[in-house]
Amino acid sequence: MSIDCFIQPVDKEKGKEVRSYIDTLTKPPGSLGRLEELAIQLAEITSQSHPVVTPPGVIVFAADHGIVEEGVSAFPQEVTAQMVGNFANGGAAINVFSRQIGARLKIVDIGVANDVNFKAVVDRKIKYGTANFCTEDAMAREEAIRAIDVGFTEAEMMIREGIKCLIPGEMGIGNTTASSAILASLTGTDIALLVGSGTGIEDGKLAHKQDVIKRALQARKPDSKDPLDILSKVGGLEICGMAGAMLAAAENKIPILVDGFICTVAALLAVEMATEAKDYMIIGHESVEPGHQIAIERLGKKPLLHLEMRLGEGTGAAVAFPILLSAVNMLKMATFSSAGISTN
Amino acid sequence: MSIDCFIQPVDKEKGKEVRSYIDTLTKPPGSLGRLEELAIQLAEITSQSHPVVTPPGVIVFAADHGIVEEGVSAFPQEVTAQMVGNFANGGAAINVFSRQIGARLKIVDIGVANDVNFKAVVDRKIKYGTANFCTEDAMAREEAIRAIDVGFTEAEMMIREGIKCLIPGEMGIGNTTASSAILASLTGTDIALLVGSGTGIEDGKLAHKQDVIKRALQARKPDSKDPLDILSKVGGLEICGMAGAMLAAAENKIPILVDGFICTVAALLAVEMATEAKDYMIIGHESVEPGHQIAIERLGKKPLLHLEMRLGEGTGAAVAFPILLSAVNMLKMATFSSAGISTN
Repeated sequence: MSIDCFIQPVDKEKGKEVRSYIDTLTKPPGSLGRLEELAIQLAEITSQSHPVVTPPGVIVFAADHGIVEEGVSAFPQEVTAQMVGNFANGGAAINVFSRQIGARLKIVDIGVANDVNFKAVVDRKIKYGTANFCTEDAMAREEAIRAIDVGFTEAEMMIREGIKCLIPGEMGIGNTTASSAILASLTGTDIALLVGSGTGIEDGKLAHKQDVIKRALQARKPDSKDPLDILSKVGGLEICGMAGAMLAAAENKIPILVDGFICTVAALLAVEMATEAKDYMIIGHESVEPGHQIAIERLGKKPLLHLEMRLGEGTGAAVAFPILLSAVNMLKMATFSSAGISTN
Repeated sequence: MSIDCFIQPVDKEKGKEVRSYIDTLTKPPGSLGRLEELAIQLAEITSQSHPVVTPPGVIVFAADHGIVEEGVSAFPQEVTAQMVGNFANGGAAINVFSRQIGARLKIVDIGVANDVNFKAVVDRKIKYGTANFCTEDAMAREEAIRAIDVGFTEAEMMIREGIKCLIPGEMGIGNTTASSAILASLTGTDIALLVGSGTGIEDGKLAHKQDVIKRALQARKPDSKDPLDILSKVGGLEICGMAGAMLAAAENKIPILVDGFICTVAALLAVEMATEAKDYMIIGHESVEPGHQIAIERLGKKPLLHLEMRLGEGTGAAVAFPILLSAVNMLKMATFSSAGISTN
């Protein structure tokens, strides 16, 4: 069993065409800064001279983490299921931001530790949370593959139904711990540099969280060259789901608006599985979680927003989405010749 | 003749109330970062527990600058009038971004050097452009006061008609030169540190632009404590208009979303005229024009966006507007108790 997907390189020729076109618009050359770069990237991704990014689709994967037994989180495990209920009832941050940007929103239970019964939640549970990766592998390799496939197929369904930009999100108490372990495995970065307070643990607990991850990595020894080995040993089911969803978007030439730390770690894994996926990604924001900056650097991208957010769920990307819209709207401006304006 | 306006201090009590309320929402405390600060500021400005910021109103003041005779700009003077035509026809950057955010858009000819005849443009011309402030005062003190009053009344009209957030914008070939002279007068900053390339002049011309401003300031000697003296000696009519519009917004408890360099300089002048106006201001973005950072620091604020924009017209603020919307939408989230979620 392995991950099969076919991602085309982005359309650099279309990008060049749009770059030249932007210089004919009624504004000083380059004066819209990163909006111009973004319009070019969106043209490359979609092969369209006037890229369409609406409606966006937000897909939130929820799952639990056995590692919370080690006391690494500020919230108890049942909060994952409770927050899934909040998503279903429309009360969470990602709900209000999705409504703001006119996004379609799908919630997927890919591994919540409790039974979750809400009409608005898609049941694709692989298992009732991962195992505690301090003492055993988080999941079987085959389970990681199945979780990636869930992400792929659920995102592909949204794409078939018409979404034009993918915003992957997550909910899972303990998932900054799993993401930190993954990022350390991938990059060899010192745990002390990349582990922050997650959603808000105190300083004493922070040292404990770092120690738990160090011990776990020594025990599990994930293979830095094998994303499936990393995911099965220290990963999370929702992280698999997000990586799979991103592969589906790239395969379908749909831009991926990446959220915070956990999402960017999933993006790095997706790129390990299919290098070409990287060019389909845009980083929505930089979170205050210290590992995020390291993950962003590894991806070689620049985030759009710096609003000191650290919530997850896809919220940072959703808040950044209007900037993509501004980039494509820019292309609707008049040109110097159509407006009869002197260029010098 | 003087500037009369009555600006109330912002409602700090309402801010405290909203700060406490935000901590009951279903998210880790503080995890929405600057969106939380922004929601509190908007509550303070509007005295509302659920501030309303839609529809926003964009008001663009257009005027010309005699200083362009000195060869300080990359574009010829007639471009100001041509761009006013582009605004009237809906083809400029501020038109597409205004449409995106559902803004009402008003274009005011407050001093274009040519006759401008478009139904969509409000004719409040004070004079056909300022004088060349290298050789004489840009305008009479009385003209500066009248231009501020035009800005005030035109903005107030939009407020009466229902706008809930003011985005002041400008168009005026040569206005980075005027703004640099104003900022140097206000702050005493070395011209070399704050004068950049504007909308795109080359390096040789940059040294010339700096030299022109230095000579002009030596000749005009504006009084750093008197904003009207500064405006009349080296200012621009559109800068007066923007300052007046901001005073009207503050007087009416309407948030002001400040754009780039020229707009921030106008904001500083408005604050010189009425200190309380400052708390009604939010900086939309940081432009790449070097003087902008200095102006922002002087105002003691942090911009929302850093997208390397330098277009003016109100575009950076318009692109930032959805972030204000996210801040107020955040307040529509469920609370921990309403959603039945464990807090620890």
